[in-house]
Amino acid sequence: MSVVWDALYTNVNLATMVDGYGEMRGGAIAVKDGRIAWLGAAAEARAAGDAAVVHDGAGCWLTPGLIDCHTHIVHAGNRSDEFEARLNGATYEDIARAGGGIMSTVRATRAASEDELYAQSLPRILSLLAEGVTTLEIKSGYGLTLEAEARMLRVARRVGATLPVGVATTFLGAHAVPPEFAGRADDYVDEVCAMIAPLAEQGLVDAVDAFCERIGFSHAQTERVFQAAAARGLPVKLHAEQLSDQRGAELVAKYQGLSADHLEHLTADGIAAMASGGTVAVLLPGAYYFLRDTTPPPVAALRAAGVAMAVATDNNPGTSPMTSLLLAMNMACTLWRLTPLEALAGCTVHAAAALGRRDSVGTLEVGKRADFALWNIARPADLSYAIGFNPCKGVVYGGVPRRPAV
Amino acid sequence: MSVVWDALYTNVNLATMVDGYGEMRGGAIAVKDGRIAWLGAAAEARAAGDAAVVHDGAGCWLTPGLIDCHTHIVHAGNRSDEFEARLNGATYEDIARAGGGIMSTVRATRAASEDELYAQSLPRILSLLAEGVTTLEIKSGYGLTLEAEARMLRVARRVGATLPVGVATTFLGAHAVPPEFAGRADDYVDEVCAMIAPLAEQGLVDAVDAFCERIGFSHAQTERVFQAAAARGLPVKLHAEQLSDQRGAELVAKYQGLSADHLEHLTADGIAAMASGGTVAVLLPGAYYFLRDTTPPPVAALRAAGVAMAVATDNNPGTSPMTSLLLAMNMACTLWRLTPLEALAGCTVHAAAALGRRDSVGTLEVGKRADFALWNIARPADLSYAIGFNPCKGVVYGGVPRRPAV
Ligand SMILES: [Zn+2]
Ligand SMILES: [Zn+2]
Repeated sequence: MSVVWDALYTNVNLATMVDGYGEMRGGAIAVKDGRIAWLGAAAEARAAGDAAVVHDGAGCWLTPGLIDCHTHIVHAGNRSDEFEARLNGATYEDIARAGGGIMSTVRATRAASEDELYAQSLPRILSLLAEGVTTLEIKSGYGLTLEAEARMLRVARRVGATLPVGVATTFLGAHAVPPEFAGRADDYVDEVCAMIAPLAEQGLVDAVDAFCERIGFSHAQTERVFQAAAARGLPVKLHAEQLSDQRGAELVAKYQGLSADHLEHLTADGIAAMASGGTVAVLLPGAYYFLRDTTPPPVAALRAAGVAMAVATDNNPGTSPMTSLLLAMNMACTLWRLTPLEALAGCTVHAAAALGRRDSVGTLEVGKRADFALWNIARPADLSYAIGFNPCKGVVYGGVPRRPAV
Repeated sequence: MSVVWDALYTNVNLATMVDGYGEMRGGAIAVKDGRIAWLGAAAEARAAGDAAVVHDGAGCWLTPGLIDCHTHIVHAGNRSDEFEARLNGATYEDIARAGGGIMSTVRATRAASEDELYAQSLPRILSLLAEGVTTLEIKSGYGLTLEAEARMLRVARRVGATLPVGVATTFLGAHAVPPEFAGRADDYVDEVCAMIAPLAEQGLVDAVDAFCERIGFSHAQTERVFQAAAARGLPVKLHAEQLSDQRGAELVAKYQGLSADHLEHLTADGIAAMASGGTVAVLLPGAYYFLRDTTPPPVAALRAAGVAMAVATDNNPGTSPMTSLLLAMNMACTLWRLTPLEALAGCTVHAAAALGRRDSVGTLEVGKRADFALWNIARPADLSYAIGFNPCKGVVYGGVPRRPAV
């Protein structure tokens, strides 16, 4: 007797994202126990197995579920008031004097209960999910005390437990120096290093991140955080080279980290280090766009060096209030000349690598989680081409349809 | 006995868009016979009238329905293949040689039946409607024969007849010279002028537009089209000064036209003409973004001269495949430094003026159509601040709730 699958999705065009798009027109994909059990030409499905349920994909394209591998999406409040004030002529100093900037988000996040944080973050998260996102990274970094950082990370875990999306948590205690440590950044770094063990013991930390920048933490301070992470066996990633070269990419590579993110000021040495270390370059066009930056990351050099490029929203209230991963793909193409294939790989296979989940998600391959999205599009490039359009017709998460449409 | 309204929307914060935002927190708005019958403080509603139905707005903001006053949204096919080819290194010449560019959209649109055109345009239109759009301009211009232009305009009329959205149609026969008139642009302009009367007799034309540009139609050719429009009593508008100064804005002002659109290369003389002619400046940041243009329209000078500025998507497959008016608002602020108030006025009151509908839509005033949108936002600036997020919680069109959510 032949195999019996839980479900078969047939009459779809597959983009497996294995070796480029991995296009397979007129395909089908079978699910069993939450994993991909078979995929191939629709005409061959009958010979390969029987399915308890057959879904007609109606000619949709089917890709791996999208992965947003860099977000600060759990936070309280927003900063539209500052946005409006700046456009009405207020300077950054005016805004800082009025208590604005990142510290306004820290205050709001510290003041919010776990339920409030969850409720305020939910609409943003649902906006990503509606576009086929099945894996989401969420950073802490607006609490800046052990208790408030833990609260943010618990909310992130609750998102993964209550919504049909996989969540990777990242501890970003080294995001900014809180006011109570003003002028004592090194003391705050001690504090951050000391937070890692208790947070890890509560199962709240999948990776450790820092903001290595003149206006953030120095190379040396960042390395202390990385050492503390390494001592707990936690992988690292880094906000690196966004505004200036701090040799952050080299530091990530030295610690065999998962990714270096932003990278507008990345040097040839940094690229070489990332290429040899297997570090993923996470590109964040939303922040570049919103900040009206004019120095693009060195895309052509990263491509030439064979560094894997991911693309993410960087959702955060100060520099990228963006809740559309498809739009991040369009911006990566439009502003930085990624190809639509690179943009889609950047939100699937390479984004999985940036989260250390390359073995379980990011491509359509037998044995991987059955996380995929169905799209009413003519070709995969449509996902990068359209601006502000959502052609998602259904999502399957762990083998379970997330929308009735499927 | 007091007035009886059809419905009262209470517990809302109104942004009437009369004199700035026209903020009225803790407000209410009453509807009768499809029009706004009353608005004021919620606490005063009971004294002012009785309502057959009372809707609790749950603290939402309520604005005039949004107006997208410049689109080419009815067309067949898309150009994601060219987008991808260009990003893989193809030149514009390569693409033209392969039959690409605007003529590929003309071929696809000419080949599509009225039903096919409607069906292909529908998802794009629904994307706009989901964001609170209640009035939509739709241009012809991919048919370029009397029969095919009429077909596009009939589809536009059908959109207005079948969907809860007001449609303003614009005849754009002078969009490009079709291949059968290659080298005979003046003959084609004769043809365009001759199309106006039959199209107008069929009730298909609310305004007449042209593409006045080195690669489009000359100032003199454009004026011939405007004369033909004036002879039929039709208002004009113009794709003006996008790539070079053709004194198009002056020409619109001379014909007391509704709007001059794009305007990246507008001169001081053009601004002065628009100011004295009451011509609306329709700003189209999607095309600027998608084409990676670096010359912004003279926003500060337009503001100083008191020219009303509208903001629109310019939805079209070649230069602005954008179906989010909220995103156009964000781009107008981010890329061109409009304030959030200017962006919202640009998609309400000034967009209404750009369509000659200032008397019936665009603000919340007694007697106007009851077209409005409800938003789950903290303040009106949120609409321009967020990137790729849709906080629309309900739409009322002609007094009728468009979504069950309201
Ligand atoms: Zn970040
Ligand atoms: Zn246009």
